[in-house]
Amino acid sequence: MTFLDALNHAWRRHDSLVCVGLDPEPAKFPAALRDRPDAIFEFCRAIVDATADLVCCFKPQIAHFAAHAAEGALERLIAHVHAAHPGVPVILDAKRGDIGSTAQQYAAEAFDRYGADAVTANPYLGRDSVQPFLDRADKGVILLCRTSNPGARDLQDLTVRNADGIERTLYQHVAETVARDWNANGNCALVVGATYPEELADVRRRVGDLPLLVPGVGAQGGDVAAVVKNGATASGGGLIISSSRAILYAGNGEDFADAARKAALQLRDEINRVRSKAEG
Amino acid sequence: MTFLDALNHAWRRHDSLVCVGLDPEPAKFPAALRDRPDAIFEFCRAIVDATADLVCCFKPQIAHFAAHAAEGALERLIAHVHAAHPGVPVILDAKRGDIGSTAQQYAAEAFDRYGADAVTANPYLGRDSVQPFLDRADKGVILLCRTSNPGARDLQDLTVRNADGIERTLYQHVAETVARDWNANGNCALVVGATYPEELADVRRRVGDLPLLVPGVGAQGGDVAAVVKNGATASGGGLIISSSRAILYAGNGEDFADAARKAALQLRDEINRVRSKAEG
Repeated sequence: MTFLDALNHAWRRHDSLVCVGLDPEPAKFPAALRDRPDAIFEFCRAIVDATADLVCCFKPQIAHFAAHAAEGALERLIAHVHAAHPGVPVILDAKRGDIGSTAQQYAAEAFDRYGADAVTANPYLGRDSVQPFLDRADKGVILLCRTSNPGARDLQDLTVRNADGIERTLYQHVAETVARDWNANGNCALVVGATYPEELADVRRRVGDLPLLVPGVGAQGGDVAAVVKNGATASGGGLIISSSRAILYAGNGEDFADAARKAALQLRDEINRVRSKAEG
Repeated sequence: MTFLDALNHAWRRHDSLVCVGLDPEPAKFPAALRDRPDAIFEFCRAIVDATADLVCCFKPQIAHFAAHAAEGALERLIAHVHAAHPGVPVILDAKRGDIGSTAQQYAAEAFDRYGADAVTANPYLGRDSVQPFLDRADKGVILLCRTSNPGARDLQDLTVRNADGIERTLYQHVAETVARDWNANGNCALVVGATYPEELADVRRRVGDLPLLVPGVGAQGGDVAAVVKNGATASGGGLIISSSRAILYAGNGEDFADAARKAALQLRDEINRVRSKAEG
């Protein structure tokens, strides 16, 4: 099954657009867990098992593992999701991008070593830099478009003119280029931050039903109603709404996994209320 | 000592602008080495020890380690360069970029876990995404500007207009923004590919004496004379000219390290002949 098929199934089966971002920060773990030798894996596995029926996918962020030399924990975590919760795809949030043979190595890292179902990638180096990802038709390739941080303005909001004299912002150019040219295998999606709802609406108008990965609700302050209204497809879907810290660290006691489940449930239901209003 | 101080010393002490890129591909290793359990480390260490007095720095490319789950080899390799060849800085070629707390984690990965002296980074997410790198004033931050691959055209060559109505290409905008705004700690450099000498000359005109990391000579076909003429500062320096495959795989027998040394020496001398002509 391709990433997009799995995502479509999970969206429907769990009636959920929620993606739980797995950004482990040991300093924020419950005290009883923090100093255990395999704390990163145990924490993330508990979150996964507590929320798997409420989400459309999981998104481990690789830097949070790499900074702690915990690649092994990441390998086991992704294998655990696939074994214990079949049908819930895993996006490896790595924002990779390089050229030629190195791009091949990054594809091998994400898909062969870690077994991820999709990966986030950076478009700055151009199409050939992501071609090894795009060529894996069963895998998802989620390209940075308009990110949720203030610095997104520095490059992404610049007005650009292409060879045909058409003017638009750089992120609009990326959105259209990916939807029109890079999506030949039908395996592309875009990252658009929740904190800029007008930009989200603008991207949605340009890319049809292409899935959008939307980080920035929760700790970063993006508004859920605005995200759904501005980002959803005509049928009320097409969104992977990602929350990390607000779910992972909803509690810091022994009941952290229960607290995470409540936070994920609350987010799912809040999203679905807006969706049903939009349909009604 | 800061990265740039170390680089300046190594440039002078070894009379060399050569950077050896460490992109291990086990399939290309000599047959006797290929199947050894620690082959990646042993191969790279042999290359390092055979060429350290001929280079201004080494540049391991992290994907080539990560695809083989060889992070431990990368840690030991960087520690070996520092211990056996003090004063030769190491650039971790990772092309990282992410936001907020994740950017912090990437800085921890490169500088604290691996102990690299500099890291390559992707500017697409804007200044705050690289700020945790920039804040480490003793470390180098080498931002992608105009890369050596054909796809560089897709985004980097677009004409952009900034808030002041000034038009230039996106890579020119990145070059000037980094040189003027992001370099407050004096620790920035730029990646500009060897395969586009006119763009290299253009960047050099815009950024004064900022160091330029120039991949693309050797296997990718960049012309050494054009790189030096177009990219060097007025005093004939300012360049980190990186070659990977043409040095690493110059030989494929038991004498591979000797063959690599010869190739590195040849590149160093070829560069220096052009430099002395330019000065003469």
